[in-house]
Amino acid sequence: MPIIESLLDTDFYKFTMGQVACLRYPDVVVKYAFTCRTPGARLAEVIREGDLRHELEGARALRLTDGELRALRGVRVADRQVFREDYLAFLKGLRLPEYRLERVGDTYCLEFPGRWREAVFWETPALAIVNELTCRALLEGMTPPERDAVYAEGVSRLSGKVRRLKGRPDITFADFGARRRFSRAWQEGVARRLSQELPGQFLGDSNVEMAFRFGVTPIGTVGHEMFMAMSGIAGDSAEAIRASHNRTLQVWWDQYGPGLSVALADTYGSDFFFRDMTREQAAAWKGLRHDSGDPITFGEKAIAFYQRHGIDPREKLLVFSDGLDVGAILRIADHLRGRIGVSFGWGTNLTNDLGLAPLSLVVKMVEADGRRTVKLSDNLAKATGTPEDVERFKRIFGYTGKVYEPCRY
Amino acid sequence: MPIIESLLDTDFYKFTMGQVACLRYPDVVVKYAFTCRTPGARLAEVIREGDLRHELEGARALRLTDGELRALRGVRVADRQVFREDYLAFLKGLRLPEYRLERVGDTYCLEFPGRWREAVFWETPALAIVNELTCRALLEGMTPPERDAVYAEGVSRLSGKVRRLKGRPDITFADFGARRRFSRAWQEGVARRLSQELPGQFLGDSNVEMAFRFGVTPIGTVGHEMFMAMSGIAGDSAEAIRASHNRTLQVWWDQYGPGLSVALADTYGSDFFFRDMTREQAAAWKGLRHDSGDPITFGEKAIAFYQRHGIDPREKLLVFSDGLDVGAILRIADHLRGRIGVSFGWGTNLTNDLGLAPLSLVVKMVEADGRRTVKLSDNLAKATGTPEDVERFKRIFGYTGKVYEPCRY
Repeated sequence: MPIIESLLDTDFYKFTMGQVACLRYPDVVVKYAFTCRTPGARLAEVIREGDLRHELEGARALRLTDGELRALRGVRVADRQVFREDYLAFLKGLRLPEYRLERVGDTYCLEFPGRWREAVFWETPALAIVNELTCRALLEGMTPPERDAVYAEGVSRLSGKVRRLKGRPDITFADFGARRRFSRAWQEGVARRLSQELPGQFLGDSNVEMAFRFGVTPIGTVGHEMFMAMSGIAGDSAEAIRASHNRTLQVWWDQYGPGLSVALADTYGSDFFFRDMTREQAAAWKGLRHDSGDPITFGEKAIAFYQRHGIDPREKLLVFSDGLDVGAILRIADHLRGRIGVSFGWGTNLTNDLGLAPLSLVVKMVEADGRRTVKLSDNLAKATGTPEDVERFKRIFGYTGKVYEPCRY
Repeated sequence: MPIIESLLDTDFYKFTMGQVACLRYPDVVVKYAFTCRTPGARLAEVIREGDLRHELEGARALRLTDGELRALRGVRVADRQVFREDYLAFLKGLRLPEYRLERVGDTYCLEFPGRWREAVFWETPALAIVNELTCRALLEGMTPPERDAVYAEGVSRLSGKVRRLKGRPDITFADFGARRRFSRAWQEGVARRLSQELPGQFLGDSNVEMAFRFGVTPIGTVGHEMFMAMSGIAGDSAEAIRASHNRTLQVWWDQYGPGLSVALADTYGSDFFFRDMTREQAAAWKGLRHDSGDPITFGEKAIAFYQRHGIDPREKLLVFSDGLDVGAILRIADHLRGRIGVSFGWGTNLTNDLGLAPLSLVVKMVEADGRRTVKLSDNLAKATGTPEDVERFKRIFGYTGKVYEPCRY
C-alpha cells in the first residue's frame, strides 16, 4: 500500500495557491528544497533510498479521478465556487513533477524544481512520506508489545486533548497536521475521532481528503511560499520586492474575494504587514494568520491595528498555527476571548503525538522565477534564505524585529 | 589575519573534557559533524570553499605556545591545579586533527573524525570560523554607512544590556558566546566592555583566551558530548548505557573534585538525572547546569531534589545557559532569588546581537568508540541522533518527557 493514495491527500492551500500559479503565472519556474534539521539523524540509514523513491514515484503516478475533481468543483466558500473550470481542467492532467533525489553521505539531497503550478504540490506529500517511512522504521525495530504501547500512548494523549477541549466548547480548530503526521492511517483516526467527539469544535481539516471524508471544511488560504514566489516574480529592485507583498494580497483578493481572505501576516515580519495592509484591505479581509513570534503579542498588535483603522476587532478572525498544543490553545483563547475572533490550526502535536520524537523536517521554496527567495518571520531563528538575502530583505521591508529564539543545541 | 590565532581561543570545557579523554580514554575515536539548520542558507555560495579551508588549515597550524601552556598550568580551581603535567605535555604537541570538507550542492559536508582527545577541540573554532566568514560576507555586501549602522546597532544593544544589568548587581554571569560570535574582534570588544563596566558581575568567560586577557575566570565544566562519548565507550547493552551517565559523573569527580562540579542535567532528560544522581553526589557537587526545557520548571525541580535529599538548596548553584537574553536572565533570577544560587552562561545574544540574523549552525558528536551517540534533552525538538537511537535511549533512560517545542517553519 503506497503512503500517498490520492492527490487530495495534501493541504487545501496547495490547491488555492496552485490556482493562482496556474491561472496567472503558468510558466513561472520555482524550486523547493527538503531539509532535515535534526543533527545526526542519518536519514539515508533510516530510510532506504529504494523505499523513498518507491513512495515518491507512487505519488507521481497519481492523477485526480473524476470523482475527486467533482468534489473539488463542489468546494464553495462564501457561496462561491473556489476552483474555476479552467483550473479544474489543468488539475485533470496534473501529476507531480520530477524530483531530484540523491544520497549524500548519510542523508538525502531532495529537491523539487519545476513549474510553480505543479511543484507546489510536492511539499505536503514529500514530508508525509519521509515522516511515515521514519515512523515505520521505528516500529519495525520494536517488539509487538512496544508497538502496542506507542499506539496506546497516542490514543491516551488524544483522549486527553479531546477531554480538555470538550470543556471549552467556545474553542474551534482545524487539523493542520498532514505534513508531519505519524502516518496517514493515524491522521485518519485522529480526524475521525475529532469529528465524532468534538463535532461543533473540529470545524475543518487542511487535508482535503480528510476534510471530504469527515464532512468538515477543507481549510487553508495562503502560505509563505505565495509571498516568496511573488517576490521572485517581482524582479530585482527593492521597490518591486517591497510592492510584491501587497501585490500578493491583491492577487489573492482578486482570485478569491472574501471567502479565503485570511492573510498570513509574518512572511516579512508582522510590523511590515501592519504597515502594508491598507485600511480598505483590513476592512475587507476576514482576518489574519499568526505563524511565528509570541501569539499574545501578535493578538494585541492585531487588535490595535484594527482599532487604529476604526474597525471592530470582534468582527475579525485570528487563526493561530505556530507550534500549538492544548496549553497554548487555551492560553491564547483565554487571553483574547471576547476581544477578537480566534481559531486554531493544529499541526504536529495533533497528528504526531504518540511519544516518539518527530524529526525536524521542512520543505521550503528556495527559488522563484530565477531568484532566491526569503522568509523573515517574527522570529529570526526561523528565517530562510542565504544570510545576504535575509539582510537585504530586512532592509527592503524595514524589518526591525529583534526576536531570535533558536532551538539551541 | 586568520580568524583563529590561538588554540586558547576556544571554550574552557574543551580542555577539561579533553583532559579526561586524554588521560583515561586516549585511544577512543569519535566523530563530530557540522549541520547548518537554516533552510536555503546555501552556505557554499556564501563562503568560498578556499576561504573555509584556509581558515580551518590556519587553525590546524596552531600550537600552544610555552606562554599559553604556562597560563593553562596556572589555572587553579578550589586551590587545585586543574591540568595535570602529563596532560600539559600532551597539549604541547596538540594540533587539531584532519577534517573532512566536501562541497555538496550548495552546502558543505564538514566532519571531524579522530581521537576524542584531539577532535574535541574542533567544535568551537569550526563554528566560530563559519560564523565569522558568514558575517564577513554580509559586511562585504554592504556600503560603508550600512556597515557602520550594523556596528552602531551592536554597540547600542550591548549598552542596553550593560545598563539593565548595572541595576541588578545581584546577577552574575559568564560569556558563553565564543562559538556563535559575530567575530573574534567583536567578542573581544564585548568582553572588554563587560569587564570594565560590570566588574563584579561579569565573573567569567568560557573562552580561555578572553578569560586570561580580561582577568576573569575561565568557565566551563562538562558538555553533552562527555555523556555521549561515555555512552559509546560503555558498549551496547542497555544497562551499560544507563550506567554510563553516573559513570560520567564519577569520572568527572575523580578528575576534578569539587572545583568543576557543576553537572549538566539534561543529556537524557533531567528527570533521569534527578533519579540518577545520588544523595552523596548531590551533597558533594556544587550545582547543576540547565540547557533545555523551561528554566523555571527546572529550578523548581532542582530545589525539590535538594530538599528531598535533606540538602539546603541555598548552598547550591544553578547555571542557566539555554538561549538567554536579558529578559530571561531577569525572570529566572527574580523567580529563584534567595532560594538557590543562580548564575548565567550567556551565548549568542551576548556575542552576536548586532541586528543581523545568525545562521543556525551546530557541531555535534555523532559517534564515539564505533557507536552512534544520542542526546535527548528536556525538549525533544533538540534531540540528536537517528530516530531509532533516540527511541532506544528514551526506553533505556525511562524518558517520559512530553515537551516538543520545535522552531516551526
